[in-house]
Amino acid sequence: MFRVVYPGSFDPVTNGHMNIIERCAARFEAVIVAVLVNLEKEPWFGPEERLQMLRECCAHLPNVEVDGFSGLLVDYVRRREANVIIKGLRAVSDFEYELQQALMNRRLAPEVDTLFMMCDAEYSFLSSRVVKEIARLGGPLNNLVPRVVEERLRRRWKSGA
Amino acid sequence: MFRVVYPGSFDPVTNGHMNIIERCAARFEAVIVAVLVNLEKEPWFGPEERLQMLRECCAHLPNVEVDGFSGLLVDYVRRREANVIIKGLRAVSDFEYELQQALMNRRLAPEVDTLFMMCDAEYSFLSSRVVKEIARLGGPLNNLVPRVVEERLRRRWKSGA
Amino acid sequence: MFRVVYPGSFDPVTNGHMNIIERCAARFEAVIVAVLVNLEKEPWFGPEERLQMLRECCAHLPNVEVDGFSGLLVDYVRRREANVIIKGLRAVSDFEYELQQALMNRRLAPEVDTLFMMCDAEYSFLSSRVVKEIARLGGPLNNLVPRVVEERLRRRWKSGA
Amino acid sequence: MFRVVYPGSFDPVTNGHMNIIERCAARFEAVIVAVLVNLEKEPWFGPEERLQMLRECCAHLPNVEVDGFSGLLVDYVRRREANVIIKGLRAVSDFEYELQQALMNRRLAPEVDTLFMMCDAEYSFLSSRVVKEIARLGGPLNNLVPRVVEERLRRRWKSGA
Amino acid sequence: MFRVVYPGSFDPVTNGHMNIIERCAARFEAVIVAVLVNLEKEPWFGPEERLQMLRECCAHLPNVEVDGFSGLLVDYVRRREANVIIKGLRAVSDFEYELQQALMNRRLAPEVDTLFMMCDAEYSFLSSRVVKEIARLGGPLNNLVPRVVEERLRRRWKSGA
Amino acid sequence: MFRVVYPGSFDPVTNGHMNIIERCAARFEAVIVAVLVNLEKEPWFGPEERLQMLRECCAHLPNVEVDGFSGLLVDYVRRREANVIIKGLRAVSDFEYELQQALMNRRLAPEVDTLFMMCDAEYSFLSSRVVKEIARLGGPLNNLVPRVVEERLRRRWKSGA
Repeated sequence: MFRVVYPGSFDPVTNGHMNIIERCAARFEAVIVAVLVNLEKEPWFGPEERLQMLRECCAHLPNVEVDGFSGLLVDYVRRREANVIIKGLRAVSDFEYELQQALMNRRLAPEVDTLFMMCDAEYSFLSSRVVKEIARLGGPLNNLVPRVVEERLRRRWKSGA
Repeated sequence: MFRVVYPGSFDPVTNGHMNIIERCAARFEAVIVAVLVNLEKEPWFGPEERLQMLRECCAHLPNVEVDGFSGLLVDYVRRREANVIIKGLRAVSDFEYELQQALMNRRLAPEVDTLFMMCDAEYSFLSSRVVKEIARLGGPLNNLVPRVVEERLRRRWKSGA
Repeated sequence: MFRVVYPGSFDPVTNGHMNIIERCAARFEAVIVAVLVNLEKEPWFGPEERLQMLRECCAHLPNVEVDGFSGLLVDYVRRREANVIIKGLRAVSDFEYELQQALMNRRLAPEVDTLFMMCDAEYSFLSSRVVKEIARLGGPLNNLVPRVVEERLRRRWKSGA
Repeated sequence: MFRVVYPGSFDPVTNGHMNIIERCAARFEAVIVAVLVNLEKEPWFGPEERLQMLRECCAHLPNVEVDGFSGLLVDYVRRREANVIIKGLRAVSDFEYELQQALMNRRLAPEVDTLFMMCDAEYSFLSSRVVKEIARLGGPLNNLVPRVVEERLRRRWKSGA
Repeated sequence: MFRVVYPGSFDPVTNGHMNIIERCAARFEAVIVAVLVNLEKEPWFGPEERLQMLRECCAHLPNVEVDGFSGLLVDYVRRREANVIIKGLRAVSDFEYELQQALMNRRLAPEVDTLFMMCDAEYSFLSSRVVKEIARLGGPLNNLVPRVVEERLRRRWKSGA
Repeated sequence: MFRVVYPGSFDPVTNGHMNIIERCAARFEAVIVAVLVNLEKEPWFGPEERLQMLRECCAHLPNVEVDGFSGLLVDYVRRREANVIIKGLRAVSDFEYELQQALMNRRLAPEVDTLFMMCDAEYSFLSSRVVKEIARLGGPLNNLVPRVVEERLRRRWKSGA
């Protein structure tokens, strides 16, 4: 079975992430969306909340599993018996960072490969950071994040986070 | 009347910013220098001080107004009945970030356009961050910032900030 | 009157060019689309044909004039009593080339400024080169170029150019 | 069956290409190496010779097929009932061009996805162009191209091409 | 005597740094590895520890001196009667930052030049940040850092830093 | 003796090249300006003319020698008993190409290193290609090329090249 891992912090998941997840679900037999639990800097949403939002957003995709992980990504990939990491690329700056990560992961685990997908053009400006910036300033979030995320961001923003 | 908004944090204003402001003042009927008041990370200079320095530096430019704003930039641009945002570009890394911001702003407000000006070559290395680094280390600031800014940076640095 | 010049070879004009022209027409009092007549390498379409296609595409925009030019761009800009050149940016590689051109033009004519607009995300992959490549291989051109251009490309391709 | 297409001009195939082909062969059930037959500029090696060199180099990989194609890549991908194009990335300039091609191909055929692999670090400087430059100047080609290619380049170079 | 300064924070020194130091030692009469003592953000290793690790790593290179500095780099370079700063380049993002620093240093001290060396391809993914990330997650560090650094990172990581 | 090689096609030499040559002459004991004789595409100026212009421009620099070469650059560097190649960098696109060349040269000749200098900011837009474009269109060349080059370009342009 061809099983891929799509890792990230998903703080929160955006429509750009969903674009990659849905395209992976259509291509590969099994997709594991792997949520990095211990982030270096304090996330907006705790691990449980990030996992729950993703599970709601992926409920319509039967071959997609949402899971949390900590530690080295390549160890998680081995443990789950996958061999391929999927990463999304938007811009040149993504590319440089991801190239560095991919080469490091090849060094740590030569049997693991990283495959990159370009985000569709309409999502090229979209990131979790941009979404949080707009939410913080009270701007409109429709079409940027799934409905369930929009509601949580609204609630949080209203309560003064 | 063709009115443009030149937004930024200006912490502090540099000769690179002044290069853009003066070229805009020569081109457009009205220029609003819009100082982002609530920065995400603690600025060196408070909003009042940043506004005051800019007002002194722009005193010789009758069609330039210095103003503060908070919230979404596109909301400010609409409120001021301008339609054009001006941003300066120096390097490829600027370009990527600004492209992302411009596309996001087009999404939030399709009637607002962003126009970019390249900084003149002699300012291509200059940023507020570079100026603060040199000031912190006691290096020479002449020709990097307007005189009024240089004096404030000197005073602040001497007093041990 | 605020008059801008939007220069290019337009071999042929694409929907990406039209996106920039229409946004300029909505912003500025007068827009001159300036077609570079003498290209270094042989164009697909002669100067007259490129001018004619653009004129048809811009017929609905009363403040847009289509004109040909040869020689230094800054000399043309001066002759037409405009002060601003508009260029579209899509990618980092555009940026580098255009930065070089803008700095050179500032050197040749300090009173002329170049302003850049980012193409809307949906046109970020589109260029005259891409269009010609698809046409040459018989692919679909709808939504990539204006109808009038599509017809000419089809005709030309059928006749075996 | 998960079948991928790895397209290129392979004029000639390098060890960097072989690095990608071998990693694909280890991952995917079936790999089609698709040689672009009609190149825009005159290749060093004709289509038959490029196909033959690749077939010799891939003889040890039972799930790799070498084939020629002309016309639109997405039409070939459809005809072969594959859904995924594999491209190698080395540098930022590759990235920009490939991003443009990937977005264009998504537009022409939304059901076809492009996946990118980063070349291993030791091949990051290697391209067909570099190989031909060294061959033309009589430099050493070992470890840059497969043995069969090295011999042909030597022969050709000696005979004064 | 041709004396060069190779500055950095070295928190900690990696095999990529050692690659540059050893190539400099083979080229230049005297090499000063200059450790920036006062970092803006809290380092993993204090100045003394960073200096000590470097001294152990460079013990086999008789023309290399390890020294600490604070304040403006160009003032240190002048004080040590060197005229050349050596910096390593790996990626485009390095390039932009280093270009900015080099132009600023030319402005501060026109008699000081910066020369850049490209890291060998096998180190192109390696940085102090990557090393600390792997150490934090308990991954293997062999071949990434000198043995003495690996031991200290292990010890620190075990004791729960 | 520390001897460096500064290679190029110099078709023609610009003030940007002279900026690098003069800074090298001030730093290194001996500088060889190495003119690539056999260019892939037809140059504007023949090898003899390019050498002669450079010799006139470097006449005031006693430790600079102007020489022609063909074949692999690393073979020339070895033959001249130099160990260091100097290249100028202006933009990101230069960087990528030069990185590729430097890594290839390290592979061909591990004892040869390439050192890069950033052009001063005022020359960041300047290249032989830009100079020829301005000359072809009859624009002003002062401050872009040495006087001797300007005269030759004028003469050539007048005679209708």
